[in-house]
Amino acid sequence: MITKEIRVYRDLMGANEEWAGKTRTLLTEKGVLMLNLIGSPGAGKTALLEGLSSYLGSKDSFAVLEGDVATTRDAERIQALGVPVSQLLSGGSCHLEAKMVYHALMDMDLDALDLVFVENVGNMVCPAEFDVGEHAKVAVLSIAEGDDKPLKYPLLFREAKAVVLTKTDLLPYVPFDIDASRRYIWQIHAGIPIFEVSALHDRGLSDLSSWIHEGSA
Amino acid sequence: MITKEIRVYRDLMGANEEWAGKTRTLLTEKGVLMLNLIGSPGAGKTALLEGLSSYLGSKDSFAVLEGDVATTRDAERIQALGVPVSQLLSGGSCHLEAKMVYHALMDMDLDALDLVFVENVGNMVCPAEFDVGEHAKVAVLSIAEGDDKPLKYPLLFREAKAVVLTKTDLLPYVPFDIDASRRYIWQIHAGIPIFEVSALHDRGLSDLSSWIHEGSA
Repeated sequence: MITKEIRVYRDLMGANEEWAGKTRTLLTEKGVLMLNLIGSPGAGKTALLEGLSSYLGSKDSFAVLEGDVATTRDAERIQALGVPVSQLLSGGSCHLEAKMVYHALMDMDLDALDLVFVENVGNMVCPAEFDVGEHAKVAVLSIAEGDDKPLKYPLLFREAKAVVLTKTDLLPYVPFDIDASRRYIWQIHAGIPIFEVSALHDRGLSDLSSWIHEGSA
Repeated sequence: MITKEIRVYRDLMGANEEWAGKTRTLLTEKGVLMLNLIGSPGAGKTALLEGLSSYLGSKDSFAVLEGDVATTRDAERIQALGVPVSQLLSGGSCHLEAKMVYHALMDMDLDALDLVFVENVGNMVCPAEFDVGEHAKVAVLSIAEGDDKPLKYPLLFREAKAVVLTKTDLLPYVPFDIDASRRYIWQIHAGIPIFEVSALHDRGLSDLSSWIHEGSA
């Protein structure tokens, strides 16, 4: 008699979904909201977190998981604020995966937290495809990148629950039509909330923090 | 007797290398130089090509292959200049692959061309990993993205033969230290040429076009 062994390799995306589901269940049990910030390199994701930190209540009630290809530069900026932070190095990969996020969360004191931000690897394409167990993805688009990006990179704007337009202080200096950008964003994702923010000039952060606390879940 | 058939699936990266090699051989035979422009969404790659077009000689001596996830917006901008252009839609993928570039080139009149630009999908991570048959990769980094990006996304700067710092007209308005950016770039890739450009204000394009014609091969 010949016995046959069949080895099953689960596809990577399937495994990612399982870790993401496990993470979301854990966070929901603990009463912790997790947001996944996604945008290009230099969209201003870290500066946004720096700016938001004054509006989010006690510095030990929220934490940041910093995703990067290399270096701990962003994590150092967050640590300087007195906010709990871990650095997730993707080792060359263009996005974060759920398993790494899960393990980083397990090393945090979730009972002390209300809110976790994942700052994904700077990239408008790949991170939009990967659920890391967040409750909501947030698209971060800098005014300097141009108003047509939502049409050119639609998946992120379709998957997101809010869009943050950053660096609005640059509006006088760059060809960016804010009305057109709203039309393009809503063409991809009708009615999604859009926040106009300048982290450097402390504009628009209060509205965004209200949405985070009340509207994002 | 039992015969065994073994099916061999060549890995995708291997196949990509073969198409890239085939492309490079063809272009070299035809005397056509191909540059692969890589940078974030909104780094100003299309504006750079628009600006460069006045410096590159006859409009039918160079062509552009526009890589995007979705839309033909960038190709339309290049077409408006009277420059031969094709749009390569990656269909959700975060980078261009060599096979698609090869087939797009086969549909062009290579005998009439000296120079082809590939404008890759807006992404600082994945396109740096894929040879599309170019003679040189060129990293495009906008001043608005921040001076630390070469350290955070090192592979692109390691693989590139030149760096173009775009949107230098924004220097008075953003926290970007140009000396630090040069140090960071040369820390990753010692001595690589760096061009400071403002396409909107027509600055630095002449030096870059001289390098393209003389120094890039």
